[in-house]
Amino acid sequence: MAPQSWLPEANLPTADFPLTHLPYGAVEVHGQQHLCVAIGTHLLDLYALAEANLLPTHLHPACQSPTLNALLTQGHQAWTHLRQTLTTLLAADAPHRTLTEAALHSIAGATLLKPIDIPNYTDFYASIHHATRVGLLFRPDQPLLPNYKHIPIGYHGRASSIAVSGTPVIRPTGQTRPSTPSDQPSFIPTNALDYELELALYIGQSNPQGTPIPIEQAPHYIFGISLLNDWSARDLQSWEYQPLGPFLAKNFATTISPWITPLAALEPFRASATPRPSDDPKLLPYLHSKADQTHGALNLKLEVFLSTQTMRDNKLPPFQLSQSNPKDLYWTPAQLVTHHTSNGCNLQIGDILATGTISGPSDASAGCLLELTRNGSVPITLPTGESRTFLLDGDEIILRAHCDAPGHPRIGLGECRATILPARSSL
Amino acid sequence: MAPQSWLPEANLPTADFPLTHLPYGAVEVHGQQHLCVAIGTHLLDLYALAEANLLPTHLHPACQSPTLNALLTQGHQAWTHLRQTLTTLLAADAPHRTLTEAALHSIAGATLLKPIDIPNYTDFYASIHHATRVGLLFRPDQPLLPNYKHIPIGYHGRASSIAVSGTPVIRPTGQTRPSTPSDQPSFIPTNALDYELELALYIGQSNPQGTPIPIEQAPHYIFGISLLNDWSARDLQSWEYQPLGPFLAKNFATTISPWITPLAALEPFRASATPRPSDDPKLLPYLHSKADQTHGALNLKLEVFLSTQTMRDNKLPPFQLSQSNPKDLYWTPAQLVTHHTSNGCNLQIGDILATGTISGPSDASAGCLLELTRNGSVPITLPTGESRTFLLDGDEIILRAHCDAPGHPRIGLGECRATILPARSSL
Repeated sequence: MAPQSWLPEANLPTADFPLTHLPYGAVEVHGQQHLCVAIGTHLLDLYALAEANLLPTHLHPACQSPTLNALLTQGHQAWTHLRQTLTTLLAADAPHRTLTEAALHSIAGATLLKPIDIPNYTDFYASIHHATRVGLLFRPDQPLLPNYKHIPIGYHGRASSIAVSGTPVIRPTGQTRPSTPSDQPSFIPTNALDYELELALYIGQSNPQGTPIPIEQAPHYIFGISLLNDWSARDLQSWEYQPLGPFLAKNFATTISPWITPLAALEPFRASATPRPSDDPKLLPYLHSKADQTHGALNLKLEVFLSTQTMRDNKLPPFQLSQSNPKDLYWTPAQLVTHHTSNGCNLQIGDILATGTISGPSDASAGCLLELTRNGSVPITLPTGESRTFLLDGDEIILRAHCDAPGHPRIGLGECRATILPARSSL
Repeated sequence: MAPQSWLPEANLPTADFPLTHLPYGAVEVHGQQHLCVAIGTHLLDLYALAEANLLPTHLHPACQSPTLNALLTQGHQAWTHLRQTLTTLLAADAPHRTLTEAALHSIAGATLLKPIDIPNYTDFYASIHHATRVGLLFRPDQPLLPNYKHIPIGYHGRASSIAVSGTPVIRPTGQTRPSTPSDQPSFIPTNALDYELELALYIGQSNPQGTPIPIEQAPHYIFGISLLNDWSARDLQSWEYQPLGPFLAKNFATTISPWITPLAALEPFRASATPRPSDDPKLLPYLHSKADQTHGALNLKLEVFLSTQTMRDNKLPPFQLSQSNPKDLYWTPAQLVTHHTSNGCNLQIGDILATGTISGPSDASAGCLLELTRNGSVPITLPTGESRTFLLDGDEIILRAHCDAPGHPRIGLGECRATILPARSSL
């Protein structure tokens, strides 16, 4: 039987945050930012727990810091120690229950903040299904480039514009391709605003510059995961991206879900990496480890929902756009870490390595509108009778994820949501 | 007559650091990092000056911080106030000369450190001469892409691996293109290690997310500049960069010179932006300001030198590889700032916006070996009889820059140097 909490709501089979999950977040308390963990429909304030002397003394400074970075710096033993302590405090037979209850707040009434300082943000392109379907739109003769099956493709994103779920996204303005080569480009609000369904991997341990991380050790460098929406302006992207890659088409906003699920909580939900078809090129040795191939992949049920203003006005639920799963990615989290550092690049605590859009093999499992609407040529009809090619002002995108496996309580990653606000014309 | 300092060396016409310069750096003092300014062949310790009560009281915390970020956060008035105070302390008729002297150290014996925390690093591609010559190598039919003259091309670089001058660069290992499509790529130390001569612009003021910076205001957002070497592994780059741009080919190391020259010191050395030929497309309005076109360009004499192990063994001076000048860039610093924020992207204090390789119109003024040796096909012969296509282990690259203009003391940016160490084979 699954471990029980004294909070009955945490033991419900539908709970996102059972006792075996305990994801980290940050909450505003009297104008201050406090770290917390989620349990049932509540959050447990770590700052308050330290004040009440319920946490190991050597972890007080890290638990009373506004962001997770200090805890991560203390290393695996500290992470494990804190997780065990919190589990004990919330378990059915817990000591100090009254004191612990005093540090509980309802999530519904809380303002959740960005729980981590993110020094660097890298975005990969790990879904072969995404790469293939996007490639088909722009290069029908050669949808997948020759490097794809050899090397995890990635690029550096913008760390400064990452915001937590709930922060609205202002429609960006930018240059779009002129209709003929002799015309001037337009400088207009994007007409092709898209989301990208991704997972963020949070780096919990740094490597010195010049020292790659071998693939066997790579999983230890990841602290946890959250959902991530890599907002993209497709018309800006297609004009600017040659020859150096995406820039203003993506750096105006990136949204992360408020809860960081420790890798420890995901152990029961790992999958074997997608088997490489026999005619695929062999993995280069630095990217291969047997353990990684047999249980290196993440296995989560991902969902994307759209809520339009009309749906909200009519009290209709959000509409499900697609479902997918990171077990279908071509590259595992460990491969992303090892490849990123294979040239000696130094990762820092709090860095995000994002997977890139997570699309599945079927057209319906695509993780962005670019794929779902074939670059705007096949509109989606919504239950309200509305249709969409790309996102309109007032649209809200909601990403959700949960894991289940026989014999283990289901866990949910919480929501990553943001609403599109109209462009501001200040230039 | 130019303002004189009581340090005679600072008044020599060959000095890099006269009284009118006062660039900021950081120095190790008894295991601590102190901010300082350069004057003549000395540095003046700001921490010690604050201790001695020679600086405005409200600037003490910023001047006793290990990095410049706190000073920048205090804004233009604080920058100006500190610069005036330091100028007064070092001028010929200065008060408190004995106390000031106690805070002076020789630069020759000092360990200079990275003087600023760099939250984000963006690299542009502002030299049309560089873009054209590189384009010619890979796309002879269309050297310059259709977007180049409309939009400042840029991408996000890696902030974590930026190190100060003097830090060695370890040759990176990575994947290179297989000789035939059915072969595996090699995973080997790069055979095409290159430098790129660039300038770093340091952001001194942030803009809120969603709020672009109009071009008229853009110069106020730049605090100062330094030299920057964007090390590049060309063989890794050519294999990995499609479709998302450079990644591991560039993120293993970036070197900055130790001194940040305030924009205030560069005022006498501004130039008009390169006039756009009449058949070039008109600037989009958001990138145009008359003031920017008439004095928005930087005007510095840039030089690149190579010192090989053989040169050093034979006590030969470094060999000059090329000279160029940022006044030949197609885009001005203000245009880079405005374009970067035109979609609402938020800049943060300490961010670097780098120009990209600064090449001039002549082949000899190219800012990297990729251009100078035409991707390795035309070796350079050195005075020692050695030759180079790309860099070998033991090679040191030295970037230098200075400005001169009639009636103004010459200023020099100091050196940006690093030596290549052999690859480490740990994967």
